[in-house]
Amino acid sequence: MSLIIIGTVAFDAIETPFGKTDKIVGGAATYASLAASYFYNQAKIVAVVGDDFGKENIEILTQHGIDTEGLQIKTGEKSFFWSGKYHNDMNSRDTLITELNVLEHFDPIIPESYQNCEFLMLGNLTPQVQQTVIKRLKNRPKLIVMDTMNFWMDIMMDDLLETIKMVDVLTINDAEARQLSGEYSLVKAAKKILTMGPKYLIIKKGEHGALLFHENQIFSAPALPLAEVFDPTGAGDTFAGGFIGYLAKVGTINFNNMKNAIIYGSALASFCVEKFGTERLLNLTDQEVADRIQEFVNLSAFTIEA
Amino acid sequence: MSLIIIGTVAFDAIETPFGKTDKIVGGAATYASLAASYFYNQAKIVAVVGDDFGKENIEILTQHGIDTEGLQIKTGEKSFFWSGKYHNDMNSRDTLITELNVLEHFDPIIPESYQNCEFLMLGNLTPQVQQTVIKRLKNRPKLIVMDTMNFWMDIMMDDLLETIKMVDVLTINDAEARQLSGEYSLVKAAKKILTMGPKYLIIKKGEHGALLFHENQIFSAPALPLAEVFDPTGAGDTFAGGFIGYLAKVGTINFNNMKNAIIYGSALASFCVEKFGTERLLNLTDQEVADRIQEFVNLSAFTIEA
Repeated sequence: MSLIIIGTVAFDAIETPFGKTDKIVGGAATYASLAASYFYNQAKIVAVVGDDFGKENIEILTQHGIDTEGLQIKTGEKSFFWSGKYHNDMNSRDTLITELNVLEHFDPIIPESYQNCEFLMLGNLTPQVQQTVIKRLKNRPKLIVMDTMNFWMDIMMDDLLETIKMVDVLTINDAEARQLSGEYSLVKAAKKILTMGPKYLIIKKGEHGALLFHENQIFSAPALPLAEVFDPTGAGDTFAGGFIGYLAKVGTINFNNMKNAIIYGSALASFCVEKFGTERLLNLTDQEVADRIQEFVNLSAFTIEA
Repeated sequence: MSLIIIGTVAFDAIETPFGKTDKIVGGAATYASLAASYFYNQAKIVAVVGDDFGKENIEILTQHGIDTEGLQIKTGEKSFFWSGKYHNDMNSRDTLITELNVLEHFDPIIPESYQNCEFLMLGNLTPQVQQTVIKRLKNRPKLIVMDTMNFWMDIMMDDLLETIKMVDVLTINDAEARQLSGEYSLVKAAKKILTMGPKYLIIKKGEHGALLFHENQIFSAPALPLAEVFDPTGAGDTFAGGFIGYLAKVGTINFNNMKNAIIYGSALASFCVEKFGTERLLNLTDQEVADRIQEFVNLSAFTIEA
């Protein structure tokens, strides 16, 4: 088994009703690989940073067993930077600053040691870069999971559709599923999207959980009701990383394992939002993860004797 | 065991993107008692209609074993009438007409044969009428469930709070839980509302399911993802009726039975929205109900071996 995660490794500056941060380490590949590391040792990342991204930051990843051979460091350039401010309901946010920097001309390099990977997570990036990674792998991975967002639907739908065709699992939120399909009903939206290439569709509904669609099967995963959401940044990437990390660990792709992977992803995401940035993902214990999973079990279990 | 359901029995005229109806039979007590009838024979209703509400309409109820001794018929007066139009997303609607008619001076009468009831469902009505019914019962029922809505929070919060104090289970939607508590987080909202009187709180989230709160326990019930919502009218009342009907059938109040009651209520509500008005609730078979329950089981079950 091996697992490659592509996405951004970046700096974020975040403001929420609870406080604000200076530049802290963020990015889709950071969150996703940290989350995956709780289930799968030695996730490999493909990403790009500038030389402002110090060794101590890369160590955050390597300390979690993450292979950074595919992390390009561009001398004389700056890392991708995003700054945003969350509204009081924590469900919407304003982007204050987006500096693409090294991302503008990101040409992903796949180290030879990354070849023959079985699990590939395409974190949110331009559809072209996502596609390039698939093409640069000599053998098609057993499972390709793709995360994307409305931004790419707005400005490059054709490229997006072409990439979507090549993947096994697509993860998007409910508004994006409606935008991509032109259907309001999520059941109809899913039906349409499952004709576009992916065999599995995960619709993320934030505080309302997630839906998994596959052929005629549907799984509804709960979200853990939280008293406090401290910082939602990275929750979606953490979900995706936990999801594929769990699948890479168990190795077998089927509907049951997908369901469990969604629960594991959701559990990790529920930790992520408890503190700023990646902080809560840095030092989780196995016991904390197991207890959180048990909370999900308790939350949604019922026994009806027909 | 016995079960009383109070609420409106009324006429509705409904317009959805799929079509429109003339005046058809509706009202909270109608939907709730029809739903309850699938689990509990001989629910008793307390309501009021005018003499425009013909025998053939009352027979809709009696044919389902519903006791209508507590249904007052006011000669020379007209039944409550509501007319509404749903928007394309089916999640919002405009009220076109509200004619209170007999409801304006509704003084609920509890027939002697209704006394000693064990289960009481207070369907959505003015908080004063709901409270009057409680006071007119010689013995407090074992379980009082109250449904209400934002309208009463807007115009008579004090009366509402006084009635809420007297009940065991409150069912409201997420926006109403936020309004009632002044808390955005549903966990915090629930914590506050559980200090106001009720021992159980059900927060209905429509297409996102429902949450049950009790002491420190939470249950997250899924909603069945539907390709088509034909007419959402009465879904909340149907949910409440199925919920209390199931509890009246099993007789014992505990968290596990509450969870199952929510699944049964949700299953009946998922039928309700398939056709206009009460149509789909009139002739369900036991097999249809059992199959739908199985769909809920399949939808949310997962097995994680820790």
